[in-house]
Amino acid sequence: MSISFALPPAAQPGQAADTIDTPSLVLDLDTFSRNVDRMQAAADHAGVKLRPHAKAHKCPGISLVQIARGAVGICCQKVSEAVPFVRAGVRDIHISNEVAGPVKAALVAELARHARISVCVDDVAQVDALAVATQTAGTRLDVFVEINVGQGRCGVADGAAVLALAERIGAHPQLTMRGLQAYHGGIQHLRGWHERRDGAARAADRTGAVIAQLEAAGVACEVVTGGGSGSVEFDLASGVYTEIQPGSYVFMDADYGANTYAGALRFEHSLFIATAVMSVAARDRVVVDAGLKSMAVDSGLPWIWNDGAASATLDYVAANDEHGIVMPKSGASTGGLPPLGSRMMLVPGHCDPTLNLYDELVGVRGGVVESVWPVAARGLSR
Amino acid sequence: MSISFALPPAAQPGQAADTIDTPSLVLDLDTFSRNVDRMQAAADHAGVKLRPHAKAHKCPGISLVQIARGAVGICCQKVSEAVPFVRAGVRDIHISNEVAGPVKAALVAELARHARISVCVDDVAQVDALAVATQTAGTRLDVFVEINVGQGRCGVADGAAVLALAERIGAHPQLTMRGLQAYHGGIQHLRGWHERRDGAARAADRTGAVIAQLEAAGVACEVVTGGGSGSVEFDLASGVYTEIQPGSYVFMDADYGANTYAGALRFEHSLFIATAVMSVAARDRVVVDAGLKSMAVDSGLPWIWNDGAASATLDYVAANDEHGIVMPKSGASTGGLPPLGSRMMLVPGHCDPTLNLYDELVGVRGGVVESVWPVAARGLSR
Repeated sequence: MSISFALPPAAQPGQAADTIDTPSLVLDLDTFSRNVDRMQAAADHAGVKLRPHAKAHKCPGISLVQIARGAVGICCQKVSEAVPFVRAGVRDIHISNEVAGPVKAALVAELARHARISVCVDDVAQVDALAVATQTAGTRLDVFVEINVGQGRCGVADGAAVLALAERIGAHPQLTMRGLQAYHGGIQHLRGWHERRDGAARAADRTGAVIAQLEAAGVACEVVTGGGSGSVEFDLASGVYTEIQPGSYVFMDADYGANTYAGALRFEHSLFIATAVMSVAARDRVVVDAGLKSMAVDSGLPWIWNDGAASATLDYVAANDEHGIVMPKSGASTGGLPPLGSRMMLVPGHCDPTLNLYDELVGVRGGVVESVWPVAARGLSR
Repeated sequence: MSISFALPPAAQPGQAADTIDTPSLVLDLDTFSRNVDRMQAAADHAGVKLRPHAKAHKCPGISLVQIARGAVGICCQKVSEAVPFVRAGVRDIHISNEVAGPVKAALVAELARHARISVCVDDVAQVDALAVATQTAGTRLDVFVEINVGQGRCGVADGAAVLALAERIGAHPQLTMRGLQAYHGGIQHLRGWHERRDGAARAADRTGAVIAQLEAAGVACEVVTGGGSGSVEFDLASGVYTEIQPGSYVFMDADYGANTYAGALRFEHSLFIATAVMSVAARDRVVVDAGLKSMAVDSGLPWIWNDGAASATLDYVAANDEHGIVMPKSGASTGGLPPLGSRMMLVPGHCDPTLNLYDELVGVRGGVVESVWPVAARGLSR
């Protein structure tokens, strides 16, 4: 027997926002739009190019808005992640990461038929694999050497190592050495503004030192790309970066919200999980229908959002697979617990892996669903 | 310009297992099969029905194997999660959870056209919503009252509350009160075997007390459903449960692996993430291509698996979005770090939310890909 039964959509354009099925991932489009404009204006003012990171959202609908407002292209973190963006019409993609092995090198080389593609290296074996793949495909790639500016993850240690890789890149006419990638993920979530400022300064100093070594050897760095949403004001002012890669600023998750900010460049929470109370049987708490499968908790539990601020009376205190436990804050009354079936909005702890759980991002404006964007790169980590 | 470019598959049947693209989710089919058989034999021996939980795998291919080996049906945790299982031909599904609101009640009632469906309640409002929805759809539902046996999540407190709900259920001819659900998630991961035994005994005692209250009131409990992979040997021996709901036993994640076991009923690790070394630029560590978007870390970081055991020399020490950091264990030499492009297998910390990241589960036997099963309920948390 064939079953024709299909799951109804969680939301459709025109629907009232407070009737979206739960749990769903919701984007406040007005707030999102202000975030996009603010970052573009800051980059324009600094004379630095903006290449927003798509790993934060995996959603071509967002990249197309960013490019329409002035972004020069996008970053992706994995080769496979770039595929739906190429298909959606993005024509300039930097893969801000090393690729391992001939299968992925071949995919990068194929992608380069359809868009301008760049990729990072920190080892001659990666350069050689890219050279073979592009020769086979008959395509060209731009290549960046990644330098370690303090995170201790990927990237070579110094200018001498960059020069060795640049020489190897230069040996292959189908590869073009474009410059340096310098990114320090660890400083993005240092809580204090001064700590982040000092951390970003150290990363910029290390980058500047490598640039100087290259210049002394007669190698110009056309592009220096890096930076993130937590350090962007310092990255823009550093004089080192020609291009910045922030991603999370479009959403501002709770982890970024927990940073303190002293500068003028600030972003607002635009991303929420709509959830509903599914059990009130325990008297001292309620259970909501969004748990570990509806949000990433690696960077902390979500905030309960209420009239433009984190709730003063309720905390989301524990996430099980499909349940969230909501309790009164210490000292608050259980009388303030919401009733069965009522809805709340959560600000997720970490946006990137949360987006990676959803197939759709529901755009809302003025209390009405305006768009349902596919999270087309969801799950594409190869 | 239309782009015809599509992402090549990560794996195809017949392919050598060590050429699967990374990161990918891999199931050792022989080990999986032994786990399925062991649980079925234990349930059969105890005279208890096995209704494995599909929230652990979200994969109809697995449920069909379990049912073919003797399972009476499956559990799902959300209404939407059940849809692909109904479509795949599963005809008996218990939704082991409360459903919030009329939209979900309507979906449950629709599903009941295609399969025998049961659902939990812990509030009269839920009963009334199910009554309205089934009346509208012209379908029937089995209903379980969930009792709180110590977790403090969903479920009513005592027999009196069960009786009140049973009376409400009985007022609707299209609803049938089938019995009790009694599940305590918190005891599944108590590390010590004796601790889990004692925790399971307390949960069974609470369940038994409610059953006695119901019997004293002349209400028979046809089915008592509950239990999990960490407590199953005690659940089976308790005399309280007529049906058990374990899910993770098919995989055995690292969190279950960290439990100690003293009894005869044991399961083996069958689920792995295939990952590859993508950077060796930092001398004291290597970077692999599986991070937060390729595994859930809410219950701890993955184990590196090597020749049937956790690696004695290497640790996966940190997960970023798309990077994993692998370092020598304390005292081990950096000379043992694997080279660029080499592969390793990880046992994920928590299987349920890890499966929820992947669209496909690659089944391997004898070093060859045998099956590529869709994780068809991935992302279905509504």
